[in-house]
Amino acid sequence: MTYQIALGVEYDGTQFSGSQSQAGRRTVQSVLETALSRVADEEVRIGFAGRTDSGVHATHQVGCFRTNAKRADSAWIRGANTYLPEDVVVHSCHEVDMDFDPRRSSKWRRYLYVYGEQDVLPAIGRNLATWVNDSLDVVRMHEQSQCLLGEHDFSSFRAAQCQSISPRRCIHAISITRWDELVVLDVVANAYLLRMVRNIAGALLAISRGQVSDLAELLKNRDRRLAPPTARSDGLYLCQIAYEDYPFLSAFRIPPLLSSKAELPVLSPTDFIDVRPEI
Amino acid sequence: MTYQIALGVEYDGTQFSGSQSQAGRRTVQSVLETALSRVADEEVRIGFAGRTDSGVHATHQVGCFRTNAKRADSAWIRGANTYLPEDVVVHSCHEVDMDFDPRRSSKWRRYLYVYGEQDVLPAIGRNLATWVNDSLDVVRMHEQSQCLLGEHDFSSFRAAQCQSISPRRCIHAISITRWDELVVLDVVANAYLLRMVRNIAGALLAISRGQVSDLAELLKNRDRRLAPPTARSDGLYLCQIAYEDYPFLSAFRIPPLLSSKAELPVLSPTDFIDVRPEI
Repeated sequence: MTYQIALGVEYDGTQFSGSQSQAGRRTVQSVLETALSRVADEEVRIGFAGRTDSGVHATHQVGCFRTNAKRADSAWIRGANTYLPEDVVVHSCHEVDMDFDPRRSSKWRRYLYVYGEQDVLPAIGRNLATWVNDSLDVVRMHEQSQCLLGEHDFSSFRAAQCQSISPRRCIHAISITRWDELVVLDVVANAYLLRMVRNIAGALLAISRGQVSDLAELLKNRDRRLAPPTARSDGLYLCQIAYEDYPFLSAFRIPPLLSSKAELPVLSPTDFIDVRPEI
Repeated sequence: MTYQIALGVEYDGTQFSGSQSQAGRRTVQSVLETALSRVADEEVRIGFAGRTDSGVHATHQVGCFRTNAKRADSAWIRGANTYLPEDVVVHSCHEVDMDFDPRRSSKWRRYLYVYGEQDVLPAIGRNLATWVNDSLDVVRMHEQSQCLLGEHDFSSFRAAQCQSISPRRCIHAISITRWDELVVLDVVANAYLLRMVRNIAGALLAISRGQVSDLAELLKNRDRRLAPPTARSDGLYLCQIAYEDYPFLSAFRIPPLLSSKAELPVLSPTDFIDVRPEI
């Protein structure tokens, strides 16, 4: 008998060349497949809900695999964590229907981008936020970000190597809030173009610094070459993935640097369900 | 002309074999001396206010060196940070009198020990706290810790390799407080025996877990072999060093995981000045 198992996975992206397997690179997929294959005692191939770039973190990524091995949920968790390196951890496990697809079954994904203000860039926690030594204009960043709400052609925030057929995506919610010295961009979209969040984060940094005055104009240009540079990967966290039929896979986990300091809105996987983007 | 320069230094201790130079090991002292020697264009030897063990962090360590090179304070900071690896950073710099000694001129040192509660030990921020998967009994830990206040023979919390002549030290203040999922041991003492804070942190963990019922009895035993094991280094931060005559060197810097979440008492370098321990 074949089972399909979904895992909630947390990782510190600093030492990884992204989530997806690449020959000769250390990736989240490759270390997870190695660990799970040992637990299953057969070769395991894993698929993720979202691709994350080199250096990007996930407090809650969803990975899914098929196996003939029958194990208790707790045995998959304990077993995987025994064989995983310390920068990846499996925190939840659920058997799912065979038609479940971690990418296609999801309704939306939520990312947090964490900027930190410090006069001198810190040594402790240096990879857990994007540290800047200026004061961020949070009010202006938030106001300007609102033009991105809804369905748009996001070519201005799309990396050149992006292989998506359509440059259109739908942003359901976007906000910028301050929590003491940390400033958080919270974005929920049906899906993302390559480097879309980091490109938006970079544009908002340029807005705060007065290097760009109008984000709506930048969006309208639909030209990546006219937009500010990509922001660093350190501040980016994949934090929630919504599955209408699998609420237990849709946990929202806050990055430890923010933790309970930040009172971010709790979103249910059925939120934004009436929004039906064309793409 | 010879100058004496004091630096405020932050480091993530994870990748260091402690603060003090040791042949063939990567230490905070060796990387700082290499960087400062390049800035000074002559060989620089640095002395620290406190020795920290392998894996222990400092938000504010004080290092001091003599040099013939005349540089602006900002040039020492900028220059050192140019040549330092990313897990050490110089955040302040002041010229001090030639009779200043970072260790002997200090009145007390303050450490924070950060425990974090998590069901599954985390990947992100894994080295920035000592993660435990039980609920800590903060009230009991705090109550029990109070017997350590004042001058005592701390042999029960002294590592076997400790080379101090006297096992007596004076604890000026000690408290345990909870900040959401983080629990913080805040301790101020004139000086410390080798691994004293981590041994106290380990004993308090045993108190919380009911493995030890009476800390006062443990202290009275004056026998390390009868005490619970040393707690991990990940949770330990050197955060403040008091210099009566140099208030600008006596900054208190909170670890980023705690940051402004924790409203810890602000101590002035002249606090506890009337306490004159024999040792």
